[in-house]
Amino acid sequence: MKTRLNSGVIPAIDVEAEAAARARQLQLTKPPGSLGRLEDVACWFAARLRNPIPEMPRTEIVVFAADHGVAARGVSAFPQSVTAQMLGNFVRGGAAINVLALLEDCRIEVVDVGVASSDSSPAGVRNERVRAGTRDLSTGPAMTQEELSAALAVGERCAREAVHRGAQLLIAGDMGIANTTAAACLICAFTGATPERVVGRGTGVDDAGLARKREVVQEALARVAREKAQLTVAPAQAAKRILAELGGFEIAAIAGFYMESARCGTPVLLDGYISAAAALAAVAIEPAVLSWMHASHQSAEAGHVIALEALGLKPLLDLGLRLGEGTGAALALPIIRAALALHRKMATFSEAGVAGKNNGD
Amino acid sequence: MKTRLNSGVIPAIDVEAEAAARARQLQLTKPPGSLGRLEDVACWFAARLRNPIPEMPRTEIVVFAADHGVAARGVSAFPQSVTAQMLGNFVRGGAAINVLALLEDCRIEVVDVGVASSDSSPAGVRNERVRAGTRDLSTGPAMTQEELSAALAVGERCAREAVHRGAQLLIAGDMGIANTTAAACLICAFTGATPERVVGRGTGVDDAGLARKREVVQEALARVAREKAQLTVAPAQAAKRILAELGGFEIAAIAGFYMESARCGTPVLLDGYISAAAALAAVAIEPAVLSWMHASHQSAEAGHVIALEALGLKPLLDLGLRLGEGTGAALALPIIRAALALHRKMATFSEAGVAGKNNGD
Repeated sequence: MKTRLNSGVIPAIDVEAEAAARARQLQLTKPPGSLGRLEDVACWFAARLRNPIPEMPRTEIVVFAADHGVAARGVSAFPQSVTAQMLGNFVRGGAAINVLALLEDCRIEVVDVGVASSDSSPAGVRNERVRAGTRDLSTGPAMTQEELSAALAVGERCAREAVHRGAQLLIAGDMGIANTTAAACLICAFTGATPERVVGRGTGVDDAGLARKREVVQEALARVAREKAQLTVAPAQAAKRILAELGGFEIAAIAGFYMESARCGTPVLLDGYISAAAALAAVAIEPAVLSWMHASHQSAEAGHVIALEALGLKPLLDLGLRLGEGTGAALALPIIRAALALHRKMATFSEAGVAGKNNGD
Repeated sequence: MKTRLNSGVIPAIDVEAEAAARARQLQLTKPPGSLGRLEDVACWFAARLRNPIPEMPRTEIVVFAADHGVAARGVSAFPQSVTAQMLGNFVRGGAAINVLALLEDCRIEVVDVGVASSDSSPAGVRNERVRAGTRDLSTGPAMTQEELSAALAVGERCAREAVHRGAQLLIAGDMGIANTTAAACLICAFTGATPERVVGRGTGVDDAGLARKREVVQEALARVAREKAQLTVAPAQAAKRILAELGGFEIAAIAGFYMESARCGTPVLLDGYISAAAALAAVAIEPAVLSWMHASHQSAEAGHVIALEALGLKPLLDLGLRLGEGTGAALALPIIRAALALHRKMATFSEAGVAGKNNGD
């Protein structure tokens, strides 16, 4: 593998490796195209791992956790204390993402970017708390620009360190009660879609909760639109303002994580709804990040499909998940492993002495 | 695990184990329903493996290969000789299903049920050749009732032996140039759908080939409809007649494999288009087989969705595959493994000290 240096600039993908991978796919003992999306996956990774016949990339998962002031508005089916409680569950290995990381033999790191707790982060959690939760985004900015920079930097550091440890594919997970409300605001702001289409039930709010959540998102968007009208700034700067106004510390950290991973020339596998909001922010700040992103799954949360379409990304799985934590991305790993194993190990027509298409009998 | 005896009758699933699994899902540290299809998968296997918290079932793959007289009508993009050539590729481990079986640590057996070759089956292939290919189904019955019985019995033997070796989940794969034509005939016959909706490009025929394939299927269906009009037989008998008229030896073997697996109380994971045609035949012959079938993937072949809908089965994956061999089913195994691992290993709310939904703060 060629050395990858982070020069602060996002590198181009290796189109020669991709073309060689595409040519190889046509030689494997199967009708051309018959492995569908798996063929595209193999070629996508060839271009990013800079190898026409790549091995399964070493993958690391980083789960970013934070709390949201907007939780006070009653937008979640769970109490805010669950965010801190789940940190304990993550370090004891009892959460869904732990089970999947173990199955896939992935290192998992849990980062407290801003949990609303007077206790310090539990042992085993990386403490990078910017603040004990954001402010209520429906009434004012969720965070200051300084807090945003700090949260972005947490994600950047985590990505850089993972790459230095040898990671070749990165997954970010999220945990944060009420974070689908922040994500919905961001998806609306970055795609222009309405709250009616973008706001879903998250962890499972009832009809009254859903109506409240839509109202809150509407209020927040109206507030930001008023402020935006008074500004004329560069697109990246505008994107950062939106992220500070409407985001969350874990969402900002994930955006930073994606940007830094791309600068390191390391692909990322997106997870679900929260991850898509972070991806939209990252791409708005630094458009070249997009070519290092692969979608993993289509979440059951209503607006996820809108976010993925805006990114132009097509998910591999559609299993009705709406959990976050990186679980959808982790579930796509065995599909990627299979795609790369098929690409590496299948016999070619000439190796196998099998007649190709239309070669006559 | 309770002892399973094949009394010739298809056993009922264990609804108590299923209910216990469903109850457990509500206790795991995640919002209820947030693991989507994975929750259903865990409960489905609980009912069939007769265990509320089942381990990943030991899985075996049997690939059934045969040739089709209708290949002479120019309905495939590949020459008929490829069926025999692929047998060699299977035993040398170069085919897609070999790569996936290795990844999943599945035993794989390759069975020649009727390859059109004057040579005997290569070493490593189980020779159960009923005849060197079926007759042309567009002009007369593909096989006699005696040949059908022999092909069904091949599949039944293979399933029984796999269960006796300890298999707890079975996958049938297929190989047979022109077998999407036979499968299309069966899907039309068993679902009532028209050839326009059911006939696809298979391994990749061009427009002229597709038109020819539709004509051939139309001719075959018209021929059988004429004969059917003169018959009054029991549904199972009628289904066997259709299978003999329009099927293939590997398709009949797969139908027998599914039926015997169900009689042994062992679930099967369907593959794609060919597999769905065999499943329709099996269910038409013996309706109780259906409760032992799980769909794996949605194939790119046009009529597959029609067949699955007729069976009332919902696939886990949709990756644009159209290869057969059991590849789609094998790709679903890691999803099933993940679903069962999550079900077994995640902490419950009380174990983790995490507040459940609406429990207050």
